[in-house]
Amino acid sequence: MRTVWLNGEWCPETEARISVFDRGLLFGQSVYEVAPVIDGRIANWPHHAARLANSIRLAGFADDTDWLPVLKELVARNALAEGRAYLQVTSGSDGDRDFPLPDPRPVPTRFAFTQAAQLLDNPKAEAGLRIVLRPDGRWLLRAAKTTQLLYAVLMKEEARAAGVDDSWLVEDGVVTEATSQNAHIIDARGVLVSHPVDHGVLPGVTRISVLAIARDMGLSIEERPFTPVELFAAREAFVSAAGTLVLPVVEVDGRMIADGRPGPLARAIRERYIAMLRAQ
Amino acid sequence: MRTVWLNGEWCPETEARISVFDRGLLFGQSVYEVAPVIDGRIANWPHHAARLANSIRLAGFADDTDWLPVLKELVARNALAEGRAYLQVTSGSDGDRDFPLPDPRPVPTRFAFTQAAQLLDNPKAEAGLRIVLRPDGRWLLRAAKTTQLLYAVLMKEEARAAGVDDSWLVEDGVVTEATSQNAHIIDARGVLVSHPVDHGVLPGVTRISVLAIARDMGLSIEERPFTPVELFAAREAFVSAAGTLVLPVVEVDGRMIADGRPGPLARAIRERYIAMLRAQ
Repeated sequence: MRTVWLNGEWCPETEARISVFDRGLLFGQSVYEVAPVIDGRIANWPHHAARLANSIRLAGFADDTDWLPVLKELVARNALAEGRAYLQVTSGSDGDRDFPLPDPRPVPTRFAFTQAAQLLDNPKAEAGLRIVLRPDGRWLLRAAKTTQLLYAVLMKEEARAAGVDDSWLVEDGVVTEATSQNAHIIDARGVLVSHPVDHGVLPGVTRISVLAIARDMGLSIEERPFTPVELFAAREAFVSAAGTLVLPVVEVDGRMIADGRPGPLARAIRERYIAMLRAQ
Repeated sequence: MRTVWLNGEWCPETEARISVFDRGLLFGQSVYEVAPVIDGRIANWPHHAARLANSIRLAGFADDTDWLPVLKELVARNALAEGRAYLQVTSGSDGDRDFPLPDPRPVPTRFAFTQAAQLLDNPKAEAGLRIVLRPDGRWLLRAAKTTQLLYAVLMKEEARAAGVDDSWLVEDGVVTEATSQNAHIIDARGVLVSHPVDHGVLPGVTRISVLAIARDMGLSIEERPFTPVELFAAREAFVSAAGTLVLPVVEVDGRMIADGRPGPLARAIRERYIAMLRAQ
């Protein structure tokens, strides 16, 4: 039985409950973060904290919870060695339902839990991911990490129905990102191409490290969108996210990427990223 | 103190709580309906039930709650004479967080509450609404009435900041709808123009009655998108929704519609619609 942190209290996971009038539930006015936990330690926290502050601002409310001590104690109480620390903040509730934020503003609802997961020893790192391309039908403000995730859920379900691992999303003729991960290729010239983190995609925390590592490895990097045609012709394709680190993509819409095996550069980036996490 | 219905139980509104692991809260996999209550009776229920079934299907889960007896008893227990009956259904929870719907599927979470409101004697029916035009940044699946409402919340906040009542949303050069209401005009030729209820806008229940009444009144009707230019040149503009019935719009982006007073056709449609509701 995990312990969940809810609005300053520690409680058993089965007893962590919030009001049905919560604006996170009624309106999706709610943001979240997922940080990797390796060797019992929370990684990359400053990046997650910065993105969280930006998400809350874009979502139109305010909160200044000091999360790091909370998450550290949560990881300790749940004796989590490897996995994820999840936190969510909603704009709270005044006990009724109306679109505009009530005045005075309600106290935000905040909760956090842990999930055990094998981040380092992930069989998908060897097998590679198989994906399908789908239209990107998400809302405009993708730079905010909000809980408006139904489109991502539905596109993951489409991938499951197609017998593959995930969907990559395409908008205006270019790939934006995976359903819950940033998408990258090593293109036919050997250049790492990654969608810029403007409003169209989430500014991935793992993506920051991926690009720094690739630069360190001497790779050329272009932060620009790539097309499905470039993807099919790529030497490698891979995703990055806090929950899965770096994973290779070996098949897109039933077509192999290169020889259909995980690429050496994605593998090298994953290995260096894991070493970086363990050294934190 | 209102009574709330939650998963088959009646409870005081302050005690209606759900798990923080609910997929409605974590992923926005959640749909809702709002039905008007007039003279203590729920109006238009068959239309709301049909739309709810479609929303649940589009949102990727299943539920077959027989809502009408629940809502009738809810209205009775809360002695509601006039206002709204609100219900929400989420895809439930298996007690953890993962994007795809768990197998076996969890039991959906269902709740309902009432809100007292003056639907008939609304001062905005005399004053008219002042609105601003904003980009439509919502997600693709707008035919489903889901709780992915943060964009609507933010555009209502923008309207409040601009000192007006609401925002109308514009996409690809045409008006789609208001933040939470269908948008209509009586154009310069006297034709009622209303965006078709394809994927771009919510299929409004009130809109069905509005168009039927207008047809009855001998008005010409075109179900097609209209441009901001057509809106500025319109004889009348108005919105329709379950929560506010029919309300005239008198100002857009600081410019008066016609003479800046509620139009006679919108007024007549509102009056006939109210008579229709009371006769149900």
